[in-house]
Amino acid sequence: MSVQKEEIIDWFKSLQDSICMALEQEDGKAKFQEDFWERPGGGGGRTRIIQHGNVLEKGGVNFSAVEGTLPEKIQNALGVQSNQFLATGVSIVIHPISPKVPIIHMNTRYFELEDGTYWFGGGIDLTPHYVVKEDAQYFHQQLKTVCDKYDADFYPKFKKWADDYFFIPHRDETRGIGGIFFDRLKESEKLTKQQIFDFVKDVGSAFAPIYTRFMAAHKDETYNEEEKNWQLIRRGRYVEFNLVYDKGTKFGLDTSGRIESILMSLPELASWQYNVQVDDESAEGKTLSMLQKGINWVDLNA
Amino acid sequence: MSVQKEEIIDWFKSLQDSICMALEQEDGKAKFQEDFWERPGGGGGRTRIIQHGNVLEKGGVNFSAVEGTLPEKIQNALGVQSNQFLATGVSIVIHPISPKVPIIHMNTRYFELEDGTYWFGGGIDLTPHYVVKEDAQYFHQQLKTVCDKYDADFYPKFKKWADDYFFIPHRDETRGIGGIFFDRLKESEKLTKQQIFDFVKDVGSAFAPIYTRFMAAHKDETYNEEEKNWQLIRRGRYVEFNLVYDKGTKFGLDTSGRIESILMSLPELASWQYNVQVDDESAEGKTLSMLQKGINWVDLNA
Repeated sequence: MSVQKEEIIDWFKSLQDSICMALEQEDGKAKFQEDFWERPGGGGGRTRIIQHGNVLEKGGVNFSAVEGTLPEKIQNALGVQSNQFLATGVSIVIHPISPKVPIIHMNTRYFELEDGTYWFGGGIDLTPHYVVKEDAQYFHQQLKTVCDKYDADFYPKFKKWADDYFFIPHRDETRGIGGIFFDRLKESEKLTKQQIFDFVKDVGSAFAPIYTRFMAAHKDETYNEEEKNWQLIRRGRYVEFNLVYDKGTKFGLDTSGRIESILMSLPELASWQYNVQVDDESAEGKTLSMLQKGINWVDLNA
Repeated sequence: MSVQKEEIIDWFKSLQDSICMALEQEDGKAKFQEDFWERPGGGGGRTRIIQHGNVLEKGGVNFSAVEGTLPEKIQNALGVQSNQFLATGVSIVIHPISPKVPIIHMNTRYFELEDGTYWFGGGIDLTPHYVVKEDAQYFHQQLKTVCDKYDADFYPKFKKWADDYFFIPHRDETRGIGGIFFDRLKESEKLTKQQIFDFVKDVGSAFAPIYTRFMAAHKDETYNEEEKNWQLIRRGRYVEFNLVYDKGTKFGLDTSGRIESILMSLPELASWQYNVQVDDESAEGKTLSMLQKGINWVDLNA
């Protein structure tokens, strides 16, 4: 028998637990604050927010499982016929205190309709305030390893998808160094539903080791006021992406989701300064030059 | 002969000049920095930014006059047939340093097609970090006086339009205390094109005396850290409105306008904190209770 929704929901819950534990441990100070919420139409969520830690300034690791009747507008947008739905997943955004530690985002989700239609979706992407090539290489290699276990086409396809998705057209720059992004993933000739679920689990399980490694590696690096200011500017771009382009955010705002859980992705402080110019040869300029699509991070010499 | 576009363009330029002069004088320290830009498709603008003054933290007073061929997508959106257009206007957003001085926005604009279609649009709205009833009353009374000179229907209609426009649905709150908003205003049985233009001029001319009055009245008031923090949170809401809902911003991003001129509306610093709760009886709580549509600011006892 194929994997059932209860098993998926349970696994997402346990993923939230294990990630929160790993982040608290590496942070060493802050604890997640938990809020349960219910959705009037059915289901609800477990929002967990961490603030003012040693390493983490603000972050959310949110689980939700909402169900009920899909509004017609969204049925049309999704191109589906059935209207009783379940949407469950874990959504994470972490903003660290130090500009030397990257911002990270992860989402893993499962969607099911009463007529049996279902799909998985998700992704991880990294937004360093300063791009460190070795970190970018490591990050993409980890994701490639997870992908390659299931399908050799996954990494190139999902890496390009992330490049295209996490892009800010009005700035002509990517949000960060990308990662992987996938949607509407379901069983095929190659993979069963169980195998797709295993892939999603592996993506989810990759998060904590990757991010706690970056926390540990960079948390004690010094930084100056100029670097802190640059971080606030990069966070401003993060806000621009999330409020203007991010489909999950738009979906949440349009469907009157729990606003505080949706907008947990926004940083505690962000800055907009007029017409910021940086020297091409500066660390900021070099980072900007790498915020573009199509970079082969796994092998920069390729 | 009816008023010609050259006269309107010239007047908007002089409005920019006089407002910049008045703001510099009241600020007493910062000077506007000017950037000229050209639009590849035709026309351009004169962006003026003020930063780090005695009273003003960041603000823009922008003039533009762009012309050329209207993209088909926008023709459809506007429901017009002709495609050679001119769009000119002055757009202002001012973020003060002190939470006791309000944020203000003004826009006056004129749109014309080669087939003779034209309209004026614009508005002023005020976003106090802390609502002061006397200021709100004064602000709305000034706008009502300008409106009443032309048409007794203007103020109630344009006040409601502002309430509806400057609204953040996902927060269920207005951006501030509103003001007036109008669009597609053209000659009618009641008013000639010249009279409509005179009305728009009066709206534009009302800006400097109103805002410099608020600057002068509140710039020396003390404030504490908690009030400064509340200002940053309110600015976060301002960012949410501008990036998610503001039509001018969306139009600018969609049509690849000059991004630094469009996003001058965003504050130097803004904050998002998880699930901020305020006491109903606190100054913050009282302000929140007044961020709603339909308040009769001119006569709160009515």
